[in-house]
Amino acid sequence: IKSKLPKVGTTIFTVMSQLAAEHGAVNLGQGFPDFPVPQRLIDALARAMQAGHNQYAPMTGIPALRQAIADKTEACYGWRPDVDAEITVTSGATEAIFNAIHAVVRAGDEVIVLDPCYDCYEPAIELAGATAVHVALDPASFAPDWAAVQAAISPRTRMLIINSPHNPSGAMLGVADMQRLQAMLDGTDILLLSDEVYEHIVFDGARHESVLRYPALRQRAFVVSSFGKTYHCTGWKLGYCIAPPALSAEFRKVHQYNVFCSFNPAQHAFAEMIQAEPGHYQSLGAFYQDKRDQFRARLQGTRFRPLPVAGGYFQLVDYSAVSDLPDLEFARWLTVEHGVTGIPLSPFYATPPAGQRLLRLCFAKDERTLNLAIERLSKL
Amino acid sequence: IKSKLPKVGTTIFTVMSQLAAEHGAVNLGQGFPDFPVPQRLIDALARAMQAGHNQYAPMTGIPALRQAIADKTEACYGWRPDVDAEITVTSGATEAIFNAIHAVVRAGDEVIVLDPCYDCYEPAIELAGATAVHVALDPASFAPDWAAVQAAISPRTRMLIINSPHNPSGAMLGVADMQRLQAMLDGTDILLLSDEVYEHIVFDGARHESVLRYPALRQRAFVVSSFGKTYHCTGWKLGYCIAPPALSAEFRKVHQYNVFCSFNPAQHAFAEMIQAEPGHYQSLGAFYQDKRDQFRARLQGTRFRPLPVAGGYFQLVDYSAVSDLPDLEFARWLTVEHGVTGIPLSPFYATPPAGQRLLRLCFAKDERTLNLAIERLSKL
Ligand SMILES: CSCCC(=O)C(=O)O
Ligand SMILES: CSCCC(=O)C(=O)O
Repeated sequence: IKSKLPKVGTTIFTVMSQLAAEHGAVNLGQGFPDFPVPQRLIDALARAMQAGHNQYAPMTGIPALRQAIADKTEACYGWRPDVDAEITVTSGATEAIFNAIHAVVRAGDEVIVLDPCYDCYEPAIELAGATAVHVALDPASFAPDWAAVQAAISPRTRMLIINSPHNPSGAMLGVADMQRLQAMLDGTDILLLSDEVYEHIVFDGARHESVLRYPALRQRAFVVSSFGKTYHCTGWKLGYCIAPPALSAEFRKVHQYNVFCSFNPAQHAFAEMIQAEPGHYQSLGAFYQDKRDQFRARLQGTRFRPLPVAGGYFQLVDYSAVSDLPDLEFARWLTVEHGVTGIPLSPFYATPPAGQRLLRLCFAKDERTLNLAIERLSKL
Repeated sequence: IKSKLPKVGTTIFTVMSQLAAEHGAVNLGQGFPDFPVPQRLIDALARAMQAGHNQYAPMTGIPALRQAIADKTEACYGWRPDVDAEITVTSGATEAIFNAIHAVVRAGDEVIVLDPCYDCYEPAIELAGATAVHVALDPASFAPDWAAVQAAISPRTRMLIINSPHNPSGAMLGVADMQRLQAMLDGTDILLLSDEVYEHIVFDGARHESVLRYPALRQRAFVVSSFGKTYHCTGWKLGYCIAPPALSAEFRKVHQYNVFCSFNPAQHAFAEMIQAEPGHYQSLGAFYQDKRDQFRARLQGTRFRPLPVAGGYFQLVDYSAVSDLPDLEFARWLTVEHGVTGIPLSPFYATPPAGQRLLRLCFAKDERTLNLAIERLSKL
């Protein structure tokens, strides 16, 4: 078998989670919370099964959930997507990203990605027969260099992928970024894929600049979000995509023949949860800001230097005061020898910056987990 | 937007289900049961959530479920797949079919499909940049014409897709088919995708000739099955793919970046259910045979002529004694005017046979539903 994806190995998240398990390390690697799912959601899902919602859901998602998503979108971003034509429920944000790419990117096309970036973009692009064109974010601030993005645009550019709050850095795009992006795309037929799975995890009173706030951007965009990140249930694999009718139509052609529809009882549970407890997503920023602040404060007692985090649930730390090892080796060493697992940054890059000594630590963990990690990191 | 899938519209299953709902028709169209999921499964899923299995499952599926699948496969087909290297849990059989195609089929390749066939094969093939080569099954028996399949093989043939028990006809492949297939593929590098989602729904003491029984076939095959069909929960979207290590490795590269992993609590529930109640899948044939027999007996009192059904949960009926309408129009008319919904066969064909007057009726329904349908059909 000659591989269609010769560069793809096991994702770094799985590699590090397995290593953590083998060595009994505190796992701050793969991004998932270790505290409970809201009980209301579990109860609602159990009730949905008992009520018999166990057969195929509508391909686009159950109407009540699409309605709830529309309501929530309007409440958050001042604009209401069309429940029937613009919202599609998916089996996680990953499926949504995969579908969006496969719906519109053709063999020979180019897709611009901003490095470092989440590792599922490029394999999906390659599987569609297209090429990922990598543009580096600023190595200190992780802000986009829009002039460099502009320079990367070619007649073959079909799509640009953005991600805010940003994984792995926690940086966020601001109003000026959105305006610049809008000016840049105006008059082109470049589509936008906006990965906004951390939309509700933003700190210090900042406003999440969703693409959905900007008419000139959303008319050319697939905007992807995830219930897993917002409701502490990454293993429930439910997300959604909002896109204009013509893009949603193409998106659904892929979704229809990829998974057809998503787990039905959870759709009922989220429909109920979103309507009943808007407070949940509204307070999520404060909930995680508290974790971030405590974690950062305690990192001061170690030789790991925390970088700024504006949103999301990851803390980058510079470990140059601790070790000279390249990040892949360092992450392995820290797991095996010191019982703490983080994610090295190089897998997020086509060309990792020389001499970068950064590790990503997930702070979506309960206090004891974080304290145990800090205790171990303090010894270094 | 110029569509990548210009031929794809809304799947016939959704179209007919929507029409049935609009007109309050008895829906024997889309294939899903209307009786309850085993209570043990619902309880096990609820317990899994409560126990905290709510974060990402391993990408390949939880070990306990892969173990249960290996046990069950060995019990059924006398051969045990490797738990780590050969089994991947997917978000339904549809995702498994999509992944298998995308893992190995390249732009310019050809994939042979046997018409009539399930409607998700061709869009996935086209999205991979390949071409579906359609070979007709025998119009009366729905048996493969192996000489015609042989004649359709070209140097570009990458894959052959088979499906037994067969949707929509209910025909099954026999030992002679498998031997013929084996001889035909021997010495070629053509891969096999075997859609066996109805594996446990077989009648009259027949044996399901799984590809997994045949070493020379399984070494080149992706074998796909579904928990939805076996456990009456099509909306839970859990299935799996068994393939040799080298094929599984490529399959997983797609799965990893398509959905990454599948709904975690259901994986725990199925692991428990399969081990605790092997009687469930063992008795599924008898359960559905009873339904088939009653439904067929009652069809004798109508002008619809039932065709033979060896497996699966669909009954084809010839409606030529009732109407001259082409099947798409007939199915619509029967829904709107007589309150019974079936699936027309032409969407299962690249070139529907001229003058064929067949409708597919799903008998995975409780007695009252089937009786109500028969009552209405009797009036015609
Ligand atoms: C799909 S596993 C990775 C989870 C995640 O979002 C991350 O760790 O970045
Ligand atoms: C994905 S909806 C179709 C369900 C099914 O298997 C069928 O009706 O053939």
